[in-house]
Amino acid sequence: MAGGSDSQRIAGGEVAPAPATSNFRGSINSRGSIEAQLLRRVLTSLGDPPLEFQLPWSGERVAVPSVRSTETVRFADRSTLRGFLRDPKLRFGDYYSGGQIEVDGDLVRLISTVFRNWRTRTANDSIGSRVAGWLRRPRRNTLTGSRDNIHRHYDLGNDFYSLWLGETMAYTCAYYPTPTASLEQAQVAKMDHVCRKLRVGAGDRVVEAGCGWGSLALHMATRYGAKVRAYNISKEQLEFARARAQALGLSGRVEFVEDDYRNISGDYDVFVSVGMLEHVGAEHYAELGDVVARSLTASGRGLIHSIGRNRPEPLHPWIEKRIFPGAYPPSLAEMMQIFEPGSLSVVDVENLRLHYARTLRHWLDRYELAADKVRKLFADEAFVRMWRLYLAGSIAAFETGMLQLFQVVFTKQDNNDLPLTREHLYVR
Amino acid sequence: MAGGSDSQRIAGGEVAPAPATSNFRGSINSRGSIEAQLLRRVLTSLGDPPLEFQLPWSGERVAVPSVRSTETVRFADRSTLRGFLRDPKLRFGDYYSGGQIEVDGDLVRLISTVFRNWRTRTANDSIGSRVAGWLRRPRRNTLTGSRDNIHRHYDLGNDFYSLWLGETMAYTCAYYPTPTASLEQAQVAKMDHVCRKLRVGAGDRVVEAGCGWGSLALHMATRYGAKVRAYNISKEQLEFARARAQALGLSGRVEFVEDDYRNISGDYDVFVSVGMLEHVGAEHYAELGDVVARSLTASGRGLIHSIGRNRPEPLHPWIEKRIFPGAYPPSLAEMMQIFEPGSLSVVDVENLRLHYARTLRHWLDRYELAADKVRKLFADEAFVRMWRLYLAGSIAAFETGMLQLFQVVFTKQDNNDLPLTREHLYVR
Repeated sequence: MAGGSDSQRIAGGEVAPAPATSNFRGSINSRGSIEAQLLRRVLTSLGDPPLEFQLPWSGERVAVPSVRSTETVRFADRSTLRGFLRDPKLRFGDYYSGGQIEVDGDLVRLISTVFRNWRTRTANDSIGSRVAGWLRRPRRNTLTGSRDNIHRHYDLGNDFYSLWLGETMAYTCAYYPTPTASLEQAQVAKMDHVCRKLRVGAGDRVVEAGCGWGSLALHMATRYGAKVRAYNISKEQLEFARARAQALGLSGRVEFVEDDYRNISGDYDVFVSVGMLEHVGAEHYAELGDVVARSLTASGRGLIHSIGRNRPEPLHPWIEKRIFPGAYPPSLAEMMQIFEPGSLSVVDVENLRLHYARTLRHWLDRYELAADKVRKLFADEAFVRMWRLYLAGSIAAFETGMLQLFQVVFTKQDNNDLPLTREHLYVR
Repeated sequence: MAGGSDSQRIAGGEVAPAPATSNFRGSINSRGSIEAQLLRRVLTSLGDPPLEFQLPWSGERVAVPSVRSTETVRFADRSTLRGFLRDPKLRFGDYYSGGQIEVDGDLVRLISTVFRNWRTRTANDSIGSRVAGWLRRPRRNTLTGSRDNIHRHYDLGNDFYSLWLGETMAYTCAYYPTPTASLEQAQVAKMDHVCRKLRVGAGDRVVEAGCGWGSLALHMATRYGAKVRAYNISKEQLEFARARAQALGLSGRVEFVEDDYRNISGDYDVFVSVGMLEHVGAEHYAELGDVVARSLTASGRGLIHSIGRNRPEPLHPWIEKRIFPGAYPPSLAEMMQIFEPGSLSVVDVENLRLHYARTLRHWLDRYELAADKVRKLFADEAFVRMWRLYLAGSIAAFETGMLQLFQVVFTKQDNNDLPLTREHLYVR
């Protein structure tokens, strides 16, 4: 992502073919090429954002007159532009990754601008987008489908993830008790926040559905004295987690099981799942609810932590295709399909959206610092750019409220062994 | 509700006609009358609870052998029993009110026993009960329907409610920061809890939908310096609230408007509704969401506090018929119909179920102390008993998890002016 462009005014015209000599700095009054006119319409449909498109082959620049552009999007050639115009949601990411689209300026701000206006303009098409979303989802989360979907993302290599996730290797939203907390502090604080919400105590039997690299399971065992059985279907993560448990001498108290959440068995005082629900798929929520209901004891506590939405909407198609196959962030109403059939009682919901934006900023900062190492690991510039775009786009999604982060605490219906208030979460 | 019965064992037989001399204390081995056999089936369907039925006209007692009864239900005559068996959910309340059914023992415990087992046995019929619920609801909450429904409950007389609601006249779930808080302390703490969640500040424009006797509106003005416009369609409550505002010299800062929530107009920093949603009806949630979305400023905060359910289920038919016409406590998923169409962002949900059980116990204690005054006010023993049953049944419903109490905080989708944590709620 080469340096920021100087924002520039285009006087007097909507589409400005720039003289080659002045590096797109000219302006004229003609309506420009068909492509330029289409791009002008894109700007209108986005609510006239401070954004400039550059078409080097014709020397044209497209921006909103009287709006000072902060970001520039440059297309390498006409065929890139045409591909983009046919399916901007999917193609922007692919062309950005491949280098056919270059962005000058702040990538997060660019995407935020698009998301903010895009949402405003599509606020009333929820049924349509819902249908489109379901039609678009090809990767089912059956037992084998899930294995494949999870493998494609989480088995990219522990070396890769350890470059930017930080010491805890927690690849989920952190919790910042104060704005100045570091990534590591915030990840530990998240684990403590979760443990407090679940009132994890010494000797508690905990089952974890989707345990990542094992940090929460190990934290519960070392700091809270719990006995944890943690399920995961990512081989690489499990190997890492088991090695950690062994190094800490915790193999007897933390068991890492390579299996699907649907095969969880046994009785537990605590059910916890941080960042797995996104991969479950809404059609499997009732099944997950059954697992929870049969696993939890009468006084058991449960917590599900998941990326979510304010209303049902498909995952961004590029993210689903290139980054998270089979993933779907639910609305709160959709999440309730886990709890309502079995009359599980929701006792607390906290939305940590801005904490995820903060977490992702920390990740992106570290990712940029480690970009050369990523380049060496994969020998693939497109991969480096793809993951930059994914992280930047995720920041934008959480900052504009396109995505939410819900932590839901629940119990059996007639469990009255509950703290009267939530004050105990905030005692330091 | 005359004194508690001595719990007694029935040896050797399911149905025991008692010799008249021993006040139902005998036991035999016969199967008893048809009615007695039907009552035995009722006990089986309820999971063999510690409950005895008494049939004075035949001298029979029906209980579960080997289960020590803690409560006794006595039917005045055969026609009462037959009526009860035809429609127990509806008739129990009516016969209890009329005195044709007497209960010895702890009324709350009796109802809790029934609720607990009833739920367990009907845990898988949610579609059926949903349909039944919708078919059963005759009282629509149109603009005029709502007025009638609200009038029937809330205009029973301020003199009546002031006998047992306490000083604040808050007729909604209180918030107990500690188990020893008094009703008054807990009602004030509830108002502060709500104000903190909404971050009400000096000069904030607040709109309240359904303001009861005005305690929250007045609290927000006096303690937080807000400017409040409070809507209500109960004439008696509004008269009381206006008199209070005038006495406090707050008429300029708190305006009580006699109108429906659907007619709310203007822009507000805060939208609050405590205990109104139960009367809105699920078919009007989208409409309520529209009102919220058009009323809240970009950085506005909203809170809806409502009785709810773990899953969709109709209100108990006797309560809907005799106490709360047109009322319906929603599940969380149903509540989301308010927020999701307009992409409002839910930031916090707290379930205060056990606080409502506590509040209701305080109300029932005061109600019993004031029973003679209630009797004088209405000259109607059935009314006295009906309200006792309603309060006792409500305690049982909250204690068994048949009912929930949800406080939901929300904002516009892209409002990032949010506190990082909820710790500010717990600073004293």
